Amino acid sequence: MSLMMKEILEQPAALSRTFEAERPHFHRFRTFAAKRNFRLIVLVARGTSDNAALFGRYLLELTTGIPVSLCAPSIHTIYHAPLRLQDALVVGISQSGEGDDVNFVLRAARQQGAYTVGITNEARSAMARTVHEVFLARAGRQHSVAATKTYTTQLLLLYMLASALGSQVTLQEVSEIPARANVALGLAGGIQELVERYRYMRQCVVVARGLNYANAFELALKLMETCYVVAERFSSADFLHGPIAMIERDFPVLIFMPAGKSFKELKNLVVRLTKLRAETLVIAPESLRPPGATRSIGMPGKIPELFSPIPYIIPGQLFAASLAEVKDLDADKPRSLQIVTHTV
Amino acid sequence: MSLMMKEILEQPAALSRTFEAERPHFHRFRTFAAKRNFRLIVLVARGTSDNAALFGRYLLELTTGIPVSLCAPSIHTIYHAPLRLQDALVVGISQSGEGDDVNFVLRAARQQGAYTVGITNEARSAMARTVHEVFLARAGRQHSVAATKTYTTQLLLLYMLASALGSQVTLQEVSEIPARANVALGLAGGIQELVERYRYMRQCVVVARGLNYANAFELALKLMETCYVVAERFSSADFLHGPIAMIERDFPVLIFMPAGKSFKELKNLVVRLTKLRAETLVIAPESLRPPGATRSIGMPGKIPELFSPIPYIIPGQLFAASLAEVKDLDADKPRSLQIVTHTV
Repeated sequence: MSLMMKEILEQPAALSRTFEAERPHFHRFRTFAAKRNFRLIVLVARGTSDNAALFGRYLLELTTGIPVSLCAPSIHTIYHAPLRLQDALVVGISQSGEGDDVNFVLRAARQQGAYTVGITNEARSAMARTVHEVFLARAGRQHSVAATKTYTTQLLLLYMLASALGSQVTLQEVSEIPARANVALGLAGGIQELVERYRYMRQCVVVARGLNYANAFELALKLMETCYVVAERFSSADFLHGPIAMIERDFPVLIFMPAGKSFKELKNLVVRLTKLRAETLVIAPESLRPPGATRSIGMPGKIPELFSPIPYIIPGQLFAASLAEVKDLDADKPRSLQIVTHTV
Repeated sequence: MSLMMKEILEQPAALSRTFEAERPHFHRFRTFAAKRNFRLIVLVARGTSDNAALFGRYLLELTTGIPVSLCAPSIHTIYHAPLRLQDALVVGISQSGEGDDVNFVLRAARQQGAYTVGITNEARSAMARTVHEVFLARAGRQHSVAATKTYTTQLLLLYMLASALGSQVTLQEVSEIPARANVALGLAGGIQELVERYRYMRQCVVVARGLNYANAFELALKLMETCYVVAERFSSADFLHGPIAMIERDFPVLIFMPAGKSFKELKNLVVRLTKLRAETLVIAPESLRPPGATRSIGMPGKIPELFSPIPYIIPGQLFAASLAEVKDLDADKPRSLQIVTHTV
């Protein structure tokens, strides 16, 4: 079994451990945040952690009403431009905590008066020394180059942050996430059979909307890193503003479509893609599989849309890890990559 | 000649017209903005206009110090979540001004206390009726499905907005943009010869950094819409965090590399890609063409990085329009698309 697959399977335990260990911390942070009255949240990250940030953007705006900006690191690292961040909460996200560019932004933001926090898996990292406060993921050391358990524990900590900054996410609901992740892992066998079909897939598009938009980025990144598939990622709305012109007979489109407010639009997209004779693979509730889809992965149980991103990325991770195996690629040794990437 | 090519060639005139007509407007807006003291700028758009917004994000943060957030429309249109936008300037960008989702966000933002402006090509559009104030692009009616002249006039208006909100962009500098665009159009003949090489290109990656990052999105979008090339787009830093694993011998990577603060990093990327035996096509200053690149488009003259995005996208537009022709595709009739796309 690849290290990647092993770490995918560790996720329920990693999520539970992180939740239990950080719960008291967020109780304290809730009191602190109420006093500070943040008017802006800035999220800064790279790679998989940046996909977690993209999720955080939707979650935090939706549940706290505070506007969120996804940081463009080059503003700080290349152009050295000062931003007015006095009332901002700046959240760095990094598995290793050693990304020089992310830490550079956190230092700059701190100098500009922002309150800085770090979401990282490493308590002794440079990030932990840089920020005012660390929310520590307890995913256990990441040995796989392709991040999986660190992505979902970062998402979990963002839920906990949302619970501290607003009233729409409760810690009780967050506590149910590890069990939901465990149920999703039950899909592993079916996905291992399904991926045979995609042995020769060289390019694809991954589509989602809203809360699961980040999952489209994350699945595409896993497919690029571990399967060398040229995987584009779009929101269903952006996809219709141009890129859909690429789609012809047989073109594979992978779609996250949990039950909820984004479902209808994605269902309409499947209908349109079916008319174009594209190949669609949907990850949808077992009870709501859209009739036109070429293939589907049925998610068991009832999952509220707000809590769908962690369980829904799991079949995506399983798909990428299994597909790498079927393509006879070593998911643990992607060419050209290391675990910690240094960029400016 | 395709409508697309015709509109590409109209750009210097469209830019001049827009600059002259809107100049007094921005003088007034400067006084108004100084009183309002905006603490946040939110940009909202779709498709090509969203690529203009991505440019605006870098330009406005760099030159005004005001944090910028690129709006996620679904927060408003699908989830109906209220955001705290009392001190925000919310800028909608739309060629037609008829995008229901963008206008929905502008209405919601206005209700939440934001000051709203619209950058549009159509004075009688729904957007013009929705916002407090319109900055009108005078690109002339867009007949091509693939947007070109509306993209660059939107960029021009964003420069004018930056000049009103900060002190780092002067209207004198903005007034020089149409002439720079005109010089770039001189590349048309050379590009028409160059594209033969890419007749069978089915997929590629487009890379840029900072101020030209939006151009990577825009060139990729033109390639997807008019040439049906699966074109991924990345910042050079994000590219190194995973996607570079896709790159093997012959894989085409198109790179915007103007002179300036982002040049060195992109030059290093070309070296790395050359070692991987990828095919690189760089758009770089004539005087600074990186030695390893497989092919290059040399930009004449000295262009400051801050003012490089408009002249640099022009060879990109010419490349896409010429490549569509060489691929025997009708750039004016991309399959599955119309000029105005309705999404939520």
